[in-house]
Formats: sequence, structure tokens, C-alpha cells
Amino acid sequence: MSAPRTAAVTDAVLVPARTTAADAVAAAGLPASGPNAIVVVRDPEGRLRDLDWAPEADTTVEPVAISSPDGLNVLRHSTAHVLAQAVQDVFPEAKLGIGPPIDNGFYYDFDVARPFNPEDLDKLEKRMQEIIKSGQRFQRRRFDSLEQAKAELANEPYKLELVAWKGEQDSSDIKGAVEDSEVMEVGGGELTIYDNINPKTGERCWGDLCRGPHLPSTRLIQAFKLMRSAAAYWRGSEKNPQLQRIYGTAWPTRDALKDYQRMLEEAARRDHRKLGTDLDLFSFPDELGSGLPVFHPKGGIIRREMENYSRQRHEEAGYSFVNTPHITKGHLYEVSGHLDWYADGMFPPMELEGAKYYLKPMNCPMHDLIYRSRGRSYRELPLRMFEFGTVYRYEKSGVIHGLTRVRGMTQDDAHIFCTPEQVEGELASLLKFVLDLLSDYGLTDFYLELSTKNPEKYVGSDEVWEVATETLRRVATESGLELVPDPGGAAFYGPKISVQARDAIGRTWQMSTIQLDFNLPERFELEYQAADGTRQRPVMIHRALFGSIERFFGVLTEHYAGAFPAWLAPVQVIGIPIRADHADYLRAFADRLRAEGIRVEVDDSDERMQKKIRNAQQQKIPFMAIAGDDDVSGATVSFRYRDGSQRNGVPLDEAVAHVVDVVRSRTNVGPSAA
Amino acid sequence: MSAPRTAAVTDAVLVPARTTAADAVAAAGLPASGPNAIVVVRDPEGRLRDLDWAPEADTTVEPVAISSPDGLNVLRHSTAHVLAQAVQDVFPEAKLGIGPPIDNGFYYDFDVARPFNPEDLDKLEKRMQEIIKSGQRFQRRRFDSLEQAKAELANEPYKLELVAWKGEQDSSDIKGAVEDSEVMEVGGGELTIYDNINPKTGERCWGDLCRGPHLPSTRLIQAFKLMRSAAAYWRGSEKNPQLQRIYGTAWPTRDALKDYQRMLEEAARRDHRKLGTDLDLFSFPDELGSGLPVFHPKGGIIRREMENYSRQRHEEAGYSFVNTPHITKGHLYEVSGHLDWYADGMFPPMELEGAKYYLKPMNCPMHDLIYRSRGRSYRELPLRMFEFGTVYRYEKSGVIHGLTRVRGMTQDDAHIFCTPEQVEGELASLLKFVLDLLSDYGLTDFYLELSTKNPEKYVGSDEVWEVATETLRRVATESGLELVPDPGGAAFYGPKISVQARDAIGRTWQMSTIQLDFNLPERFELEYQAADGTRQRPVMIHRALFGSIERFFGVLTEHYAGAFPAWLAPVQVIGIPIRADHADYLRAFADRLRAEGIRVEVDDSDERMQKKIRNAQQQKIPFMAIAGDDDVSGATVSFRYRDGSQRNGVPLDEAVAHVVDVVRSRTNVGPSAA
Repeated sequence: MSAPRTAAVTDAVLVPARTTAADAVAAAGLPASGPNAIVVVRDPEGRLRDLDWAPEADTTVEPVAISSPDGLNVLRHSTAHVLAQAVQDVFPEAKLGIGPPIDNGFYYDFDVARPFNPEDLDKLEKRMQEIIKSGQRFQRRRFDSLEQAKAELANEPYKLELVAWKGEQDSSDIKGAVEDSEVMEVGGGELTIYDNINPKTGERCWGDLCRGPHLPSTRLIQAFKLMRSAAAYWRGSEKNPQLQRIYGTAWPTRDALKDYQRMLEEAARRDHRKLGTDLDLFSFPDELGSGLPVFHPKGGIIRREMENYSRQRHEEAGYSFVNTPHITKGHLYEVSGHLDWYADGMFPPMELEGAKYYLKPMNCPMHDLIYRSRGRSYRELPLRMFEFGTVYRYEKSGVIHGLTRVRGMTQDDAHIFCTPEQVEGELASLLKFVLDLLSDYGLTDFYLELSTKNPEKYVGSDEVWEVATETLRRVATESGLELVPDPGGAAFYGPKISVQARDAIGRTWQMSTIQLDFNLPERFELEYQAADGTRQRPVMIHRALFGSIERFFGVLTEHYAGAFPAWLAPVQVIGIPIRADHADYLRAFADRLRAEGIRVEVDDSDERMQKKIRNAQQQKIPFMAIAGDDDVSGATVSFRYRDGSQRNGVPLDEAVAHVVDVVRSRTNVGPSAA
Repeated sequence: MSAPRTAAVTDAVLVPARTTAADAVAAAGLPASGPNAIVVVRDPEGRLRDLDWAPEADTTVEPVAISSPDGLNVLRHSTAHVLAQAVQDVFPEAKLGIGPPIDNGFYYDFDVARPFNPEDLDKLEKRMQEIIKSGQRFQRRRFDSLEQAKAELANEPYKLELVAWKGEQDSSDIKGAVEDSEVMEVGGGELTIYDNINPKTGERCWGDLCRGPHLPSTRLIQAFKLMRSAAAYWRGSEKNPQLQRIYGTAWPTRDALKDYQRMLEEAARRDHRKLGTDLDLFSFPDELGSGLPVFHPKGGIIRREMENYSRQRHEEAGYSFVNTPHITKGHLYEVSGHLDWYADGMFPPMELEGAKYYLKPMNCPMHDLIYRSRGRSYRELPLRMFEFGTVYRYEKSGVIHGLTRVRGMTQDDAHIFCTPEQVEGELASLLKFVLDLLSDYGLTDFYLELSTKNPEKYVGSDEVWEVATETLRRVATESGLELVPDPGGAAFYGPKISVQARDAIGRTWQMSTIQLDFNLPERFELEYQAADGTRQRPVMIHRALFGSIERFFGVLTEHYAGAFPAWLAPVQVIGIPIRADHADYLRAFADRLRAEGIRVEVDDSDERMQKKIRNAQQQKIPFMAIAGDDDVSGATVSFRYRDGSQRNGVPLDEAVAHVVDVVRSRTNVGPSAA
């Protein structure tokens, strides 16, 4: 899930020299409280500033409302500070880790004697309420020197470590190696602390090493909740001490918090891990290891339908299907560069006959080998190579989550090799293809993200990047979808578009990516003979539509809340006889459906009919075909759908045609969250 | 390839006490020369004896003809001795390794100063001819003691090692650890040498440590050929010295040798590795490592068609499809027992987070996990779980061969969980299913092998084995196919039937196996609730029809000599315009075929028509659809088939129907070896 798509946009405001941003905002008549309260401003360099910031010269700034993505981050970051203050009030021995905002909330890590329990969280919430009511001001203060910071933080060993690291970082350039959340504490050019000030007495109540910015006052924290606590290693490494992390959420209004809680409840109800067990779709046997799912027969049907349909569409769109192994000698990933820049994401090697063999984390280099297995002519391009390629990636245990974050995943992976002139046409048809296919899976609400060059890390010439980026932008714009910029977010080898899809309860998932690559064709020395007889280098486009089958399976399960559309449902029709002697009649009907390729069962168990209906409901079977005396005498069946609605006395021919039509048209029956 | 199926069976013969088997055979009027010459006899314990063997008491023996499988082995083993004698004549410094018979021939390993070259082989053949003509007798002699053997073989370091090992072996029980070919030298209860005796002078010309038996005379070697030489490690281990191996073949008659050589030529023409490159189906990139094929787009089509059809048939037969990962923590294979008895065939582990992860060499234990992911009722049985499961096995570099012996292979693997009562019915329908499916792939000439209990190595009770073996035998017998016994050949966990199929040039390939398993259900504690409410253990049947997709792909490529039947062919129809201006007409025809799902191309290149036909012929495309003026005016096309035959002026509707019919019916067009 990612942040909401639209930011509240407010007109710019002029802050006269040596006056505060707060004054300018007030002078402009902008609110200081409520859901649109301005909480920070953005300076002309794009940096967020506290409201009590007073520039040396006249400065035009952009007011940032608490309900905007940046404003929400500030709110949540300030709430994390309040949590830390409360923890040190209630557990004076607690040492502070870090406490950044995250999607929909925040966390803070503490070194404490024992894990927090639910009663602790209640107590902490109460203490936080008191702090919030007291209206403490957040006040930025710059340390004069590293030494001053070290002296003042002498009791906070983790903060001292960050200060020391900050000292190193300023004299080197290792930004890439640290987590964003650490930058939050000590990033930027200076070392600062935020003091919490009692507004009545002016007294300092608490303080935390922090880059900021923060809310002007704790009073703006209108609605928060501590969610849960969990163990977490300091700086994410198992070699470091284990801390206790408290997760919380915070919102500009109580209603927004309630909406969020309702969404969480709905999400829990749809949790694909729970549905996976309830519907007997898949499991994660302990014996295999973390992040390695097995698909049971019913999950296997859904997976196969997904694959079949995807394959059919790709065949129609001119893709060729290839197969490559799951392991290779390391040399391949030396050539591709993966062992240089992706080794951390790979499983460790197997040593055999003096060589190191690796599980493949990506299919691309193997497709490059197929490309260059013989000479290629421009006549063969674009060459679109597709593989359901299972890759293995080392994800840390802590981030593994059901099917959506796994260690073994089957990508619906394709690589398009084309001439530079073909790139635009390929991208345009590709984007249309992606969106079409996703909508066949019931996802219809999209926006695009355009990741552009990181000026510090890229290969290829600036012109090539510029042309490629503009091509992607043009193609994205022509799609008519909202386009969100992701400046500097491209991988070093080329710019990309990613398709973000919103599911049935409004959560956003990154789905497909379309990535240009100027690097691998160089590294593998790929060539084609052009019409003029010269040898040219093809451009390579990487794309995965689902991302991975596993992840898409998880997303779809939650999107449909397990009530898959009929074409995907493991059992499409269940026959329910009103009395045992109606079962034969339904079996004959089932045979007719089966002849049409429909997956149908007849519940001829000894249960009562009402129980059978309840079972079918729980199994989220799209069609219940019920038959009693009237149906038998009238040569009909009665349908009952997942939403409880019914259609009685449907003549058999019509009933077969109805089921076949719904299945083949890939539409859904009943509400998606039946 | 395996030995011919039928042994020449001869009536038993009585050898009176203290007379030779040769006398008894002669007395019975059996031939001593020619293609049916009796060369050894089988004693009542089943042991093969030389013809000059003279039992202490009257003994009934079975004469063994040179053309029987055992007779061929003796012929080839004796020819190996003649080769070794010739090598030591020509290269007096050569030291002897071992020299066993193998399928269709024999080899012998030598420690020599330099590798043999083709001229050496010519020279050796000549010397062998001289030895053969001299009619040396093979004469068995028993060493009185290990010491005597060591003294006599003092100049043969490798033989000394075998003698020493024999000494150890007699005092322990490590038979399992040695190769059959070593047993050939020193197996059995005694240590013997075979002396070659000049029939005229009675002089000993040469001798070799050997268990025997051998031909009575080198004159029976009527037709042999040295094939090639290659390096080979002593006792197969890289840690040992490298020897030079000479491969040869030997046959009872010159005609049989010629037939064999013709078959080899035909096999070379059909070599799937060559066809794989010629037809752009697959390759083995060096970068990946040995035995790891990649399938190119055209190979991908064949593979997919194979998989799709197999899947469809399995769905119709009530199989459920599951998916499991390619790696697992080692614990799974401790539970299954694979790490105890199959570790040598597995890739080495990857160490991650304190656990060892293995590539799976078999899918079965993962299917067991799915079985026991929830409680099972007898109502669910038989539960047939199918997976196209890619497994990785460590095969030594020396035995890897194209697609037929690889390190990564996708098994069409299924496990049937059933009640003991269901076993017979399942086996019977399974065998029928297997044979049906194989014949759809053009394999129609089968025999069965029944592998039964190894009395020294099995789990489970004798009764269970007996019932299971009898069930397998009954099912096999009822199939009406020839049933070859393989006594003691079963794995320790249960008896099995394997299906052997003969290809278009008469070679036999082991295809499907149907294996009962009493072990894994125990180890994984699999259960189901029986109708009476008690908990029972299911029986597990393992079966793979193709063996692996890769191997089957290789076999089919050779069987069809690359001229795949239309339904499997990557390009099914190619349109060839007589003049460039007929291309549009063919493109319209191609569109009609494409709408029917036919893979069709139009060759609109600048080549001449004859060249296009030659290209299509080389690509072994089933249908060439040629169009010229007459076809355009008459709304027809002219078909040319792979065998060169033609059908002119076929109306378009009929042409489409013809192609669609041949493809959908899975029949072939033209001769299979076009």
C-alpha cells in the first residue's frame, strides 16, 4: 500500500525576511488547525521547514497541509516523538532507537528490559494523550559541534552511534548504505535536535536527535492509535541488539482514523493468508522454509487459469515462449553485473566441481543467451521472449509476507529486443496490453509512476536517457492516466514506468513494470544485422505484468475477498439436491456442464440442504445449482449466487448457457465481496 | 539403449559328473559355431560357466547361445580381453585397468604414455585379427592365495589394487560401493585368472585377472570393431590417475555388425543435439553449466504443446495440479530419507540463516506435505496430485548427454494417494493411460519390466510386498505386453513396473515408471479417515510418464528425426508464393489458418521458390502451401509434404480443413523420417 494519490495544493505564500513562516501562513488566512491545517512549508529548494522557520531573505514558500502526503508524514513523525517521550516517562530506563513515519503511520524502536505488552500500550496511549493535551511545541535546535551532540546524548547509546555515523558520513559518501529512516534522524547538512517545550512555562520537557521538520504543536495530533509491538534488530541487522518496536498510526481527524481502522478490519477479513487456508488454496509448510509457498489442488486451478489466460493473450500479442533453468554458474551473473549490484538479494552459491552455482534471481541474462545463440536480423525484431520464470531472491525473514513477499516467485517475465526505432511503438502497445490484461482480472483503477535518471548512478549517454525518458513520458501521457513522477528512482540501466492499481478497498499495489535497459545488450554484446548490413545493438525492454504469479495471486485473493470470478474459481458450480433423490438429476446436469469444461461438483453428502448451502457459501462457489421436485418435473435448476440472490426454475439448456457464458466472458457473479 | 528383448531359448542339457559342458552340448547336437553357437552354460544356481567346466556331480545346465543377451556379453567380454592382449603386444609398457562388456559392445582402460590415436586403433584391430585367427583358448585358473595373485600380477598395479580390494571385500560387506565392471574382474567367491592358450603349442600367450566366463576360443569372435578412445579416470574418480579407454563393439555375425553400424549412422543423423541446433530448438550455453538446457522459441512451442496435451489428458483422468518450490530446507529430505540414500545425486546445499537449503531432486516429499496440510477422508481418495516439477540432480559430467541425461529436468510427476483396496484399479487404469498417451506421441512398440524385491534391502512386510508385486504382475500381464522380470531390481521402498518403448530405429528407451511406495506414507505419517472412522495409512504410487520433459523431448526428436507431427511442429504451415505477387494471396490464407490456431508463416523473402522449398524441407515443416497463378484464379493452394509428395489445386476451405484435421487429430504427415 502506498500514500494517497492527490496532495492538497495551496497557493504559494511570501515569507518576508526574518519573519516566521507561521506568520505568513496566518497572514494569508490559511488554517492553523482542523483537517487542512498548514503544518510545515516547502522552501524553494524543495526542503520542508518548520513553521517557526524565519528565513534571512524574503522567500516564497509552499504551505503544506496536514492532510497532504508530506503533511501526514510530519504528523506521524511528530506522533512518534510523542510516543518516545511517553515511553521514557513510563519506562525511564528505555533507550531510544529510531522513529520514522511509514505508510499509514509510524514506529519507534526502544531498548527496554522486556517486550511491551498490550497493557503497556494502553498506558502509553494515556500518557501520549496527556502530552498532546499539554500542547508542547516542537523546537528545532542545531548542535554547534559533534562533541556537543555527543555530550548531550551521552545516555542514548543508539543516538550516539548515529551521531558518530553522521560524522563519518559527512566525510565520505556512503548514503546508499543507510536506511531512509536513519537519514530521518541525522540527514542533511547539519546535526539538529528537536526540543519539546511546555507552552506555559517555556520549560524543555524532552528532546530527540532529529532532522525534522515537525508540527508546531502536539495539539495538532487529533487522532492516533498504537497498533502493536514487535521485536526489531537495531539497524535491521541480526548482529545488532534486539530492540522493541511500537507501531502506531495517526490521522488529521478522528473520522480519518476510523476509516483507516475500518479498512484494516476489511483488509484482515480479506487477508489472503487466512483465505488461503480457509479455501484450501495454498500453505507455507515449515519444513520448506520461509517464503516458499506450496499451491494445493484448488490454488493450482486458479494459478493455472491465470497462467493459461496470460499465455493466450501473450501468444496473440506475438510473444515467443522460452524455458531456462533455475540455476547457473556464477559467471553469467558476473557478465550481467548482478553479482556486483544484486548479490545481497541472491541465495548463497552451491559449490560444485570447482564452480559456484547460483539460483537465478532474474531471468534476463538467460534470455540474452537465447538471443545470442545465433545471428539475428532486423527482420526478426521485435523479438518478444516470454517465460514463466521462477526466480529465487533472498528476502530478510522480517519482510516476508504471505504470497505478496516471498523468496521463490514465478515471474510472468518478458524481454523485448527491438531496434531503437521500434521502442516507442512497442512501449505504446505494451502499456495498452498491460492495462487491458489487468482489467480482465478486475483491476481497473490505475495510475502510472515514471522513474527517471538518478544523476549519480546511471550507464549510457545523457541523450539516450533523455530520448528514452521522453518516449516513456509521451506514452504514459497518451494513456490518459495520472502520471506521478519518481525523480531519480530509475535503476542505473534505464528509466521505467510502473503501473499502480487500486484494489476493491482502495489500497494501491504496484503491479506491472515496463523498464528500458541500455546495459545488458552492451554487457552481452547483443547485435542484429540492420537492413543496411551493419551490426547494431538492440534495445531491451523488461516487463512483468503481474510482477509475480504468487504476488498477483495474493493481491487478487484480497481484491476479490476470495470470491473469485467464475472463470478463476476452483469449483465453479456446485449442485445441491433438496432431497437425496434429486442428486442423480443434478449429476446428469453436472455431466452436461463438465462436457463444456466447467468445474462442477455435486454435494451428495448426508448434510442437510441448508448446511450444504452454507458450506458452498463459505467456499465462495459462484453458482449453486439447486434442484427439487419442481426442477426435476420442469427440467430446470434454480441458481443461488454468492450474494444470496436466487433465480428459480431456469430451463437446463439456458442454465448451461448461463454458466458457460459467465465463465467464458470472464465476468463475475454477485458482489465481489460476497 | 538396452539389450534386445528376446533371448534364444535352448532346452536344458545334462552334464554327467566329471565331463565337460562342451561335451554335453556337442552330444546334444547343439552348434559350436555360427550365429547360434553355444558359448557358455548356466548352472542350476544361475551362474554362467565356461564350456570346459566339468562338474563333480551330474548337473543339468542351460546352454547359452552367442546371440542371446548373456551370450553377447560373453562375446564382448572376450573381445575386450583380445583387445587388451593386442594393446600389450603393441604397447608393451601399457598397464591394464578393467574391461567389461557394455550395451552393444565393450571397453578396456589402459595406463599408457599418451592417448591412442586413430592409427593406433587400426594397428590394434589388425593385431586383434591375428590373435582371433590363431584360435587361442580362454582357460580359467584359480589362484591358490591372495599372495600368489599378487606375485603373478606384480607388474599390473591396477590389478593389484583390485586384488587387495577383493581381499577386503571378502572380509566385509561393501558390495554396494563398487561398480559392476569391477565385480566382473574379481567378483564371486574365488580369485581367478583367464589364460589365453595357443591351441597348437599349448603355450600360455597372455592372461587377465577375471571372473569370467569366456568363449571357448577367440575364433568365435566373428565381427568386431574398435569405435573410439577417450580418457577415463581409474575407478571413475577424479582423484585417481587418468587412463585411456578404448570402446569397441562385437557381434555374432558380420551382418549383425553391419546392421549395428547402419543403426549408428541413422542415430547420428537423428542425433537430437544436432537437430536441436539445426532446427533452432534448444542449446546448452556454456555460461550456465553442463546439463542445463535452454529452450528457444521453437523448442518452447514443442515443449508447450507436449505439456498442454499431457495436462489436458491428466485433467480428464482426474488429476489435480499442484505447484511446489524448487528448494527446501534439508530437514524435509531428512524426514523423507533422501539425504540418507540419495545425497550423492543431489546438488550441494546453500547455507542460509543457519539452515541448509537444497535444490529438490524429487517432488514426492513436497506432495506429501500438501497431502497432510489438512485431514483427509477416504471420500477424497484416490487423490492424484500432478506437477510439472523441475528437479535438479547431480549427474557426473561424463554421463551428461544432450537432453537425455541432464542436471535440471522437469518431471511430469504425479503421486496417487489411495486406499490399499484401490491400488489394483488405479494401477490398471494407470497402465492403460500411460500406454495410450505414449501412443499419441507416436510410440507404439512397448514391453514392460517388473522390478521386484531385493531381499537384502527393503522396508515393509513380506506380505505387503507379495500382494503388491502380484498386483503389479497381474496388471502387467493383463495388458498383453511382454513382461521381462527384473528380480531384485526394485527400490527398497516398493516394487515397480517400467515401460520400455522402441523408437523408429529400434532402440529401446525406458519411458514411464509406475512405482509403489510403502515408505514415504510411513515417514510422513500420512493418514486418512476410513469409512469406519479409523485412521488408516494411504498407499502412494509414484509415476512419471515421460520421465522428464527434456528426455522425452530428446527421444521424440530422434524418433521423428526432427520431422515432428504437425501438432507438435513449431511452424505447421509455410506459405511459398511462386512469384512475389502471390504472397498477398497466401497471407490471406495464412490469416484463415491462424484464426484456427494454426502456426503459419509466409516466406516472402527474396529467395527463389526452389530455395524456399529447400529451406522449408530443412526446417521439416509439415505443410508447404504453394500458390501460383492457377491457385489464385481457382481459389486453391497446392500442398507439398515433407516426403516430397504433392497435392495440387486444393480448394481453400478444404485446405484449411485438411490442415486443421491433421493438427487436431495429432497424426503425422509424410514419412516420420523425412
